[in-house]
Amino acid sequence: MNLTLKTSPATPTHDPALAARVHQRLDSLTKPQGSLGRLETLALQLALIQHHERPRLIAPQMLVFAGDHGLAARGVSAYPSDVTWQMVENFLAGGAAVSVLARKHGLALTVVDAGVRHNFAPRPGLIDHKVALGTADASEGPAMSAAQCAQALDAGRRVLHGLPGNVVLLGEMGIGNSSAAALLLARLTGSDITQCAGRGTGLDDAGLAHKRAVLGAVLQRHAGVREPLDALAAFGGFEIAMLVGAVLQAAAERRVIVVDGFIVSAAVLVATRLDAAVLDYCVFAHRSDEAGHRLLLDALGVEPLLDLGLRLGEGSGAALAWPLLDSALRLLNEMASFESAGVATREPG
Amino acid sequence: MNLTLKTSPATPTHDPALAARVHQRLDSLTKPQGSLGRLETLALQLALIQHHERPRLIAPQMLVFAGDHGLAARGVSAYPSDVTWQMVENFLAGGAAVSVLARKHGLALTVVDAGVRHNFAPRPGLIDHKVALGTADASEGPAMSAAQCAQALDAGRRVLHGLPGNVVLLGEMGIGNSSAAALLLARLTGSDITQCAGRGTGLDDAGLAHKRAVLGAVLQRHAGVREPLDALAAFGGFEIAMLVGAVLQAAAERRVIVVDGFIVSAAVLVATRLDAAVLDYCVFAHRSDEAGHRLLLDALGVEPLLDLGLRLGEGSGAALAWPLLDSALRLLNEMASFESAGVATREPG
Repeated sequence: MNLTLKTSPATPTHDPALAARVHQRLDSLTKPQGSLGRLETLALQLALIQHHERPRLIAPQMLVFAGDHGLAARGVSAYPSDVTWQMVENFLAGGAAVSVLARKHGLALTVVDAGVRHNFAPRPGLIDHKVALGTADASEGPAMSAAQCAQALDAGRRVLHGLPGNVVLLGEMGIGNSSAAALLLARLTGSDITQCAGRGTGLDDAGLAHKRAVLGAVLQRHAGVREPLDALAAFGGFEIAMLVGAVLQAAAERRVIVVDGFIVSAAVLVATRLDAAVLDYCVFAHRSDEAGHRLLLDALGVEPLLDLGLRLGEGSGAALAWPLLDSALRLLNEMASFESAGVATREPG
Repeated sequence: MNLTLKTSPATPTHDPALAARVHQRLDSLTKPQGSLGRLETLALQLALIQHHERPRLIAPQMLVFAGDHGLAARGVSAYPSDVTWQMVENFLAGGAAVSVLARKHGLALTVVDAGVRHNFAPRPGLIDHKVALGTADASEGPAMSAAQCAQALDAGRRVLHGLPGNVVLLGEMGIGNSSAAALLLARLTGSDITQCAGRGTGLDDAGLAHKRAVLGAVLQRHAGVREPLDALAAFGGFEIAMLVGAVLQAAAERRVIVVDGFIVSAAVLVATRLDAAVLDYCVFAHRSDEAGHRLLLDALGVEPLLDLGLRLGEGSGAALAWPLLDSALRLLNEMASFESAGVATREPG
């Protein structure tokens, strides 16, 4: 496939002079040097993203991309496809985990219909970018055409462009999409599918064995597919493709990107193969309990903030990590320095 | 030492019928069973503590106990003892990490002077329970007398008794107190002091070797001390003893106890040796970067919520974990059920 990316590439955030100033600020605060651990590297990353010593997070936007998967007909999920649209209704009605967490943490929640197998009535909080009523069955051919893939990528960019604030939290919903993510991981990293495919929403041992067999056959079916966008089109889904576009656009606009679990991480993996610099803009919220997520995070060389055995998706992990981002910047911006507080520094060594 | 505990012991929270009802509620919510991972066990623990299917966290209180250590004169810390009182001033002025985090997360912050080597002017947010101007040097004799230890335990109980709300977050400040915690851990669990003693606020290799040598000698000096309260009196400090009293009282009053890092965990270790049921009431906020903390958490058989490489103390880790407790209960109490949201359950297996 030959898609021309319409956005300018992301700018690497590397800036040793700014990093030195942020370190200097962190070391001037009333705490032992480095004692805030992961929050210090997080504060530094946010400063580099915003290219500012005193970064601020403004109007955080939680975006949940939803789509259905033709492959779900092959019995790769513990739940029927109808759960996708039913959960979209639940997101909008405020009853899902991500709805509860977004409400609690002051995150504006928007659901994007990337390709759910259901026609929704228009309403606030729902953006219609439906490419089709679900992808095609990847075990029989490509999940989507090149044109559909391009459309989905473009829609993801358009959702991001002009969005309020400077930070986006990314989530997803789609019965069958842990299969698509596993396929992308296996193909793009050369990993064995048995390492990439997990229980998803809760398959038992027999279900997991079946899923792995189906996915192995899908990889065989698309054995010649190597390029990231070709793999994306082959395996799907629409919500993952739209997430790829959103990640590329968000990074190009220097937004902070909070990455949820396995499926969003798979979209980031695809995006990094198109533009490696997007990784600088990504904060990985958590390591999920889904088998392939650890492998994916290791492949990206990143360390997530939380490790709580979550395996829900939706953006729930991103929402749970949000207070850590906010806290890291409050500490950077509001703590007193040794000098201002009149606190003695270390004993002369 | 023969101290009579003045509070009634804590009631174990074990209640299979209530636990079954909470599990049933969790499994009815619109998510795959168990997919909220650690947040589900957390929600269950909070329900058992409050003996209620729909627990609520009310008016969270952050208590920071501060005290100085005679042993600090032996060069076991990277910072001088004066930093203890200077940091207390910083807590009260709002410039310390725990001040910033308490403000952000809506936690009422109170500092308790358990035995700081400084006389503070009275002011709001500071409670004076000073036992003495720091403990005695544990390398020369007991850090405190039996009477001082009893006084500190009692003061800890009194701080808790009648405190607003139903949840307390515990923190501490005291130059030298990672040494006291390491000594308590070594003696009460029989672990080697080299495994228990770490860099504290940031000792270099030579400083760490010196600290371990000093602590080894202190253990020798008090070789006959075996009982938990005797060890507490031998090794200190006043803030740790007061934390022990606070933990015992909080558990007796069925409060949720959010435990910060290494030093507060050491106080919990002592408290569990006096009343094993207090552990049911403790939520361990994080695994700190301090060497002995992993060992201590393993000795208690508990799994903390966060693992962020923190090594600051003060209660900063407890404050950072707070949104997870709040989120766990919001999810339990506010999520829709499959039935109420009209979402299909699993495929018939």
